[in-house]
Amino acid sequence: MRDADVNVNTNANVAIVGYGLARFNRDEASKYSLYELALQSVVDMFSNMEYDARSLKDGIDALITSTTDSSTYTASILADMLGIRARIVNRVESMCSSGADALIAAYSYIASGLSNLALVVGFDSSNSGMLLDWDVARGDMRHPAHWAALYAKKHMQEFGTSREHLAMVAVKNRRSALTNEKAYFYDKGAVDVDDVLRSKPVVEPLRLYDCSIACNGAASILLASADIAKSVCREPVWIKGIGSSSIGASINSIDLTTMHVTVDAARQAYKMGNVRPEMVDVAQVHDSFTILEILAYEDLGFVEKGKGGYAVEGRISIPAVNTDGGVLGRGHSSGATGIAQVVEVTRQLMHKAGSRQIKDCRIGLVHNMAAAGTHASVILLVRG
Amino acid sequence: MRDADVNVNTNANVAIVGYGLARFNRDEASKYSLYELALQSVVDMFSNMEYDARSLKDGIDALITSTTDSSTYTASILADMLGIRARIVNRVESMCSSGADALIAAYSYIASGLSNLALVVGFDSSNSGMLLDWDVARGDMRHPAHWAALYAKKHMQEFGTSREHLAMVAVKNRRSALTNEKAYFYDKGAVDVDDVLRSKPVVEPLRLYDCSIACNGAASILLASADIAKSVCREPVWIKGIGSSSIGASINSIDLTTMHVTVDAARQAYKMGNVRPEMVDVAQVHDSFTILEILAYEDLGFVEKGKGGYAVEGRISIPAVNTDGGVLGRGHSSGATGIAQVVEVTRQLMHKAGSRQIKDCRIGLVHNMAAAGTHASVILLVRG
Repeated sequence: MRDADVNVNTNANVAIVGYGLARFNRDEASKYSLYELALQSVVDMFSNMEYDARSLKDGIDALITSTTDSSTYTASILADMLGIRARIVNRVESMCSSGADALIAAYSYIASGLSNLALVVGFDSSNSGMLLDWDVARGDMRHPAHWAALYAKKHMQEFGTSREHLAMVAVKNRRSALTNEKAYFYDKGAVDVDDVLRSKPVVEPLRLYDCSIACNGAASILLASADIAKSVCREPVWIKGIGSSSIGASINSIDLTTMHVTVDAARQAYKMGNVRPEMVDVAQVHDSFTILEILAYEDLGFVEKGKGGYAVEGRISIPAVNTDGGVLGRGHSSGATGIAQVVEVTRQLMHKAGSRQIKDCRIGLVHNMAAAGTHASVILLVRG
Repeated sequence: MRDADVNVNTNANVAIVGYGLARFNRDEASKYSLYELALQSVVDMFSNMEYDARSLKDGIDALITSTTDSSTYTASILADMLGIRARIVNRVESMCSSGADALIAAYSYIASGLSNLALVVGFDSSNSGMLLDWDVARGDMRHPAHWAALYAKKHMQEFGTSREHLAMVAVKNRRSALTNEKAYFYDKGAVDVDDVLRSKPVVEPLRLYDCSIACNGAASILLASADIAKSVCREPVWIKGIGSSSIGASINSIDLTTMHVTVDAARQAYKMGNVRPEMVDVAQVHDSFTILEILAYEDLGFVEKGKGGYAVEGRISIPAVNTDGGVLGRGHSSGATGIAQVVEVTRQLMHKAGSRQIKDCRIGLVHNMAAAGTHASVILLVRG
């Protein structure tokens, strides 16, 4: 914690009181259906809480699913499977940002008085999110690696960011994943910079290990109003700032060194939370490609534009980023990714992150992005 | 208007300030894509408003889509097409209730302070919503007509509701559709009770004309915070009450004469709005099958349980119901249906419903339901 003096108002009215994960996997013939994975993450959530699960379950009045899967009515079906008679029951979808946006929806239901206790369940299969559903205005770059490579090349040209800088992001996040038993790469060993640089070329300058891997996965969080948060959780984590932004792909790509939606969403969240970037202790950023973590350092204000590579080298101090392995280490499961990011920041802020606990952390940030940087959401979480 | 004395608090903080529709159609090779239909409904909305569309468009900070279509990222793509840089951008989906639930989401974004001006666009194709995405607990009744027929039979046995009662609902709503140039049945003529009774048998006792027809369609509404509603709309319509409920199919079907979710959602909405059923002037109820309109009369409290048939006969006075043709006359387009219902009630309450205007109406109700009565939302709207 680097800013103990600054007083952050923690009287926000919505808190996170529970979190859970299913193991991210790529089993070709998965043992588990998407619904089973979703239920596993809910069971994990209840088992992580001190409060009686049955009483808690009866109090849940909103159930929001986050998935890009083509199944419909997932929230009602999941509510039925869990025996939850919620009022607000629906799915939120915005491609790879579905998770953060589902949390923002749940926040709004509580803040507007329509809900007191909202369960948000993100889940997706390894088949989803591989191709972008472009409209005609956006051209033919259907594979996410195409546009990520454009940003990587431009950043290298403009700021001297190197292939090694990119590789070091993968190395760091794969190493962090070794501490996270729910991550896809948990049991698949570490990689070094040479491994990344020698991995299969995908789109110049990106190699295979620069790219996240699509997974089956699920993650759950429980949100509560101020009235009940303290009674069901010893150390609730408060939602302090929210930002969200969208932009057309054609406008966004005029400048290939900045994710404008990240800058805009972060500005909103910092303002709402009365938080400055240097106050953030721990962050989960959207590293579906290595270059995106470097851009996130800059666009979230952790370092100046162009200095992201220095931060990777450790020459500039930044918050602890992607402590659970991030998208690169955990695996990417579109609708589950944003929720899994919230899960990790929540664990850190509750001081329940085990061997990867960031000492005394108090302020956390989640950065979830979609489809060629055309949409991003930023959420600031604060230990109560 | 039947209750002029009762004082309804109209200091609600979220209003509807705009509405628009695309023509509901079933063109096999439609001239228009779903996005084009969606855009048509937005253009219609702007053309219905007094306020300058370009200035208004720049102020839109949330864009929510409502669709069961398998396309992803529809809200961001639509925002890009419209040139709207919204903050909150996502899709809400809960099968046939997606529309009302998307409105409730938009309400929450505004009520919680995250949005000031929210555009909600519902659209769907005639291919969607035909089969229910049952989970294993729900058995094999995949076609909506199966469960609707169960309810119809039981209501006939229990309360003496007749085939003619059912048919009269279809006759009424098809007649109303003749006044609505956006309805599928606008230009397809009236039917009489004999036509309905002689139409093709579907599932005993339901005939073809007892069933709604799946359509391509789109509908849009614009919601505003209290601060700006009055400045962009002369007669905003206020969202006064909201209710929503879900239940498992197995529990719901213990009693086949009541839609428990409707009773529950209505109770919440009436309580929040301080409105009694007899105060409602105009209502759009979820008549995807004729029996469902009769059940809605009862479960919304317009008549006693079992007396729905009497109301159809005109022996009991009830609000004006499905004035634009309802689902039976307009056609059913899953994600668009709930929004189209809101459009009609809004038009009525703004006193802009033309030849079908209900005189002096002040309080309106929307009832949107999904998947065998396992989820319903009720919204109360009040003229300012």
